[in-house]
Amino acid sequence: MSKNFVVAIVGATGAVGQKIAEKLVERNFPYSDIKLLASKRSAGQQVTLNDTNYTIEEATPEAFEGVDFAFFSAGGDVSRQLAKEAAARGAIVIDNTSAFRMDPDTPLVVPEVNPNALQQHSGIIANPNCSTIQMVCVLEPLRQRAGLKKVIVSTYQAVSGSGAAAIDELKKESRDFLEKKPDPQVLPVKSQPKHYPIAGNLLPQIDVFEDNGFTFEEMKMINETKKILSMPELSVAATCVRVPVITGHSESLYVETEEELSLAEIRDILGSAEGVVLQDNPAEQLYPMPLYAEDTDPVFVGRIRKDLHEKTGIHLWVVSDNLLKGAALNSIQIAEKMVEMQLVSGVSQ
Amino acid sequence: MSKNFVVAIVGATGAVGQKIAEKLVERNFPYSDIKLLASKRSAGQQVTLNDTNYTIEEATPEAFEGVDFAFFSAGGDVSRQLAKEAAARGAIVIDNTSAFRMDPDTPLVVPEVNPNALQQHSGIIANPNCSTIQMVCVLEPLRQRAGLKKVIVSTYQAVSGSGAAAIDELKKESRDFLEKKPDPQVLPVKSQPKHYPIAGNLLPQIDVFEDNGFTFEEMKMINETKKILSMPELSVAATCVRVPVITGHSESLYVETEEELSLAEIRDILGSAEGVVLQDNPAEQLYPMPLYAEDTDPVFVGRIRKDLHEKTGIHLWVVSDNLLKGAALNSIQIAEKMVEMQLVSGVSQ
Repeated sequence: MSKNFVVAIVGATGAVGQKIAEKLVERNFPYSDIKLLASKRSAGQQVTLNDTNYTIEEATPEAFEGVDFAFFSAGGDVSRQLAKEAAARGAIVIDNTSAFRMDPDTPLVVPEVNPNALQQHSGIIANPNCSTIQMVCVLEPLRQRAGLKKVIVSTYQAVSGSGAAAIDELKKESRDFLEKKPDPQVLPVKSQPKHYPIAGNLLPQIDVFEDNGFTFEEMKMINETKKILSMPELSVAATCVRVPVITGHSESLYVETEEELSLAEIRDILGSAEGVVLQDNPAEQLYPMPLYAEDTDPVFVGRIRKDLHEKTGIHLWVVSDNLLKGAALNSIQIAEKMVEMQLVSGVSQ
Repeated sequence: MSKNFVVAIVGATGAVGQKIAEKLVERNFPYSDIKLLASKRSAGQQVTLNDTNYTIEEATPEAFEGVDFAFFSAGGDVSRQLAKEAAARGAIVIDNTSAFRMDPDTPLVVPEVNPNALQQHSGIIANPNCSTIQMVCVLEPLRQRAGLKKVIVSTYQAVSGSGAAAIDELKKESRDFLEKKPDPQVLPVKSQPKHYPIAGNLLPQIDVFEDNGFTFEEMKMINETKKILSMPELSVAATCVRVPVITGHSESLYVETEEELSLAEIRDILGSAEGVVLQDNPAEQLYPMPLYAEDTDPVFVGRIRKDLHEKTGIHLWVVSDNLLKGAALNSIQIAEKMVEMQLVSGVSQ
């Protein structure tokens, strides 16, 4: 391709922003310049990336002049304030927050699953919720072959999904494990009145509760899955639980397909699915585990079993790095796919 | 009641054996003597219980002479060797291992759920698997009111279900968290070739794998639930996962009933169910968590939601102390129920 892109990262000092910067370099994304943007407070800080020094600039509307791709990962409020400003200046915004995900004009994209949704946009592409992404990577290949009837997922989500402060909290509590009384300040939801320890515990609350008793995280998984798969009527249910794991979300997934698949067919489908790696050999005690998925790109799937009663029922265990495929990697793959599909103005390949 | 019982505890030095001894005292179980039995290696050790000194004796067939209730919790092999010897000497064996659970002549009992199964036995009563017990305590009241069609459970199981060595392993790994390379020796299954860290990780293997790809733990939950509920055709599926929690098993449970229940009815049914405590107030961030269930008797249930698609579908989050209701407490409740039902020979009330 003949053009190199000016890339901006909004929230460059955060966990996901840093992963985006690293992955842009690692994947040889064709950039001519990277602008690292953050709050006024972080502006002026120096960051070294691929032997080049960058100064963090304040994220203002004007900072997006000349930017081709703007990766937003600084929280929903920042995206609501600045994403349209960036788009108005010609940038393609790839937004990692929930701000625009359910907006009908905003494509919600996992490149392996629904790349064609990228054809129509208003300057903003939404990156789905971390726990949604790894699930739809497994659901889509099954759907293509056998249709989908029902999805029930129980998640085991790592603390890094809740940011750097939650990682610190788990590390501190783990060191103090059983020796001191923990003093939780961050989890389950920093802004809510009650905080509970995560070390040696489980928190069946991720994000705030909706009126229907589901949490916002659970509703994100339900609604985003329907949108990504273009199946508004699909029966999807989610129970989301925070577990004392640093990075790597895990999911116990039950799927009913329209047509029956044999175990060999399921293995074949998932084993050849893009972005998915099969780790499924009980005899060798091989199955996905979050500790081993950390810092890797794939969606790992194992513990594949046919339901013992429901002919079209399948049980799966799905693990992926929530900061990579769940966030930074998927965002960059969206940009790569747009370049590949020649959807970026001014690109001639 | 006019008689006090001679009670034996086999496996008196183990985690569950100790809890049984403590709970017998705490609950004022009508005992005249407690015999603490263990392997030859532990014989001779002194234990103080309720201000009385006891000497641990070797568990031999002759040790059961004169015993009324023998609580077995020393592994399946010990139960297979000695339970029938104890029963032949007139003891009622309450066995906490999987040795006899699926034996058609052995009742598998949760007193709140199927006490009438105690009427017919051959001297051995089986205590179900820990993760099964807490689940059926919630299923049975729903079944009584609305029938049961389908059960899908994903577990989050504490390490104490795997014994004292697994507790030590998690504590040690947690202290070393991120500082040293862990050196796992116990989990997921001590006797199997591969061991993985549990601190900061999840192990989607509890017990060995069966030929159908389910683990023995998962098949225990499936088969024991059908037996306890006398519903051999019930559609039950389980995915069992070990989590870095010391004590307290948690379950994300999906249930389809035959008849539709309103949310208020579900709350009413579970709120008045024997042995079950409702912890379900999203506005107050009230839900069951294992850290707070430890050392308590009830089965806690919360996060109650009606499925958004299936009219008869219900989502629940169930937590209980796996060493108490999941083992020691349920065993003693079986003995108490037999006394109450006048099923113990020589008892006149």
